[in-house]
Amino acid sequence: MTEIKSNISISLDGFVAGANQGTEHPLGEGGERLHEWVIRTAGWRAHHGMTGGEESADSEVTDEVTQNVGAHIMGRNMFSPGRGAWDETWRGWWGEEPPFHAPVFVLTHHPREPLTMAGGTTFTFVTDGIHAALDAARAAAGPDRDVAIAGGAQTIRQYLAAGLLDELYLHIVPVLLGRGERLLTEEAGDPVLEPVKVVASPSVTHVKYRVRRVHG
Amino acid sequence: MTEIKSNISISLDGFVAGANQGTEHPLGEGGERLHEWVIRTAGWRAHHGMTGGEESADSEVTDEVTQNVGAHIMGRNMFSPGRGAWDETWRGWWGEEPPFHAPVFVLTHHPREPLTMAGGTTFTFVTDGIHAALDAARAAAGPDRDVAIAGGAQTIRQYLAAGLLDELYLHIVPVLLGRGERLLTEEAGDPVLEPVKVVASPSVTHVKYRVRRVHG
Repeated sequence: MTEIKSNISISLDGFVAGANQGTEHPLGEGGERLHEWVIRTAGWRAHHGMTGGEESADSEVTDEVTQNVGAHIMGRNMFSPGRGAWDETWRGWWGEEPPFHAPVFVLTHHPREPLTMAGGTTFTFVTDGIHAALDAARAAAGPDRDVAIAGGAQTIRQYLAAGLLDELYLHIVPVLLGRGERLLTEEAGDPVLEPVKVVASPSVTHVKYRVRRVHG
Repeated sequence: MTEIKSNISISLDGFVAGANQGTEHPLGEGGERLHEWVIRTAGWRAHHGMTGGEESADSEVTDEVTQNVGAHIMGRNMFSPGRGAWDETWRGWWGEEPPFHAPVFVLTHHPREPLTMAGGTTFTFVTDGIHAALDAARAAAGPDRDVAIAGGAQTIRQYLAAGLLDELYLHIVPVLLGRGERLLTEEAGDPVLEPVKVVASPSVTHVKYRVRRVHG
């Protein structure tokens, strides 16, 4: 059965990106500190077509979160730079062979033709909201594969608050960014979360939450 | 050797108390949700002179955090209600036999005679800052016992930012409060934290961080 899942690296003080995100700092100032653990892993490197890296508990988590994903959904600010402009020639941050290897549905208000990239990634632009994007992603994934809500923070919150997310897997990085973009603002609502799996490493604490139901 | 330690329950969105703390809501609105896990444990109940409760991984953590504590330090807002008033007749929130069973040093700007309570707790009021309070607590604890920074949030942040804290043990409760008092604001600085122990339960994820050094 399809599960709707999201996983994201978060600082101990609750930020998933640093301040002043934009073309100069795609992850925000200091945001790269959230991802140092993942780029060291063998799992992440293999998934991005590279060799080497560390085999570790962290690496197993990177394998786990990419397994069985049949389609992805992302917000428009994750796909494209800046918050105002919409550049028809923009082909994403990830080069000609993005690491998704599956259909990606991009939430936007701007209609655009689908983009077919190398390695199995297609970007399809969905203008009629999160439910429509989820319907399309479910259909693309099929009944046995999962849908990953890739981000950013606002998109994850929208699916969480709407009661559409089954699983939220947080990689809690022991840094304090002080400023930046929070994941769990009041917009996330008041979901009932149950920690169902914890993987500890010297670098990160990975906690998988099942979303049991949404209050109110 | 004396360790300077703090442990506190924190919501997944980073709050250690709900909004509008005061006499009516000592823990802030919804703040009791942060502590439901602990009052169910056999360890916490025994420490508070009660019987019963659950033997569990959570209970073992409550035993662990109370072991070997020779003195406590707390902020003035943890000791007394309200943020403006200072009531000379106030004897703390915890009745005549508080659960500290050791000397407690209260940070305040208002001199006051020490208060001796039943069961080994004394409240001593320290008006010359966090270093003086720590010196007094170390002396009271002796060389082989630890000093616990009891709270509140601001006091923990002060010791963390000053590089005086050795260990921060967070009990991460899977609730979102949305509003309230944060622990890890910019005032906490940018310490280097290493997760050294994780205890997982269906209710809480306990993560113990060593403070390796303080940036800057």
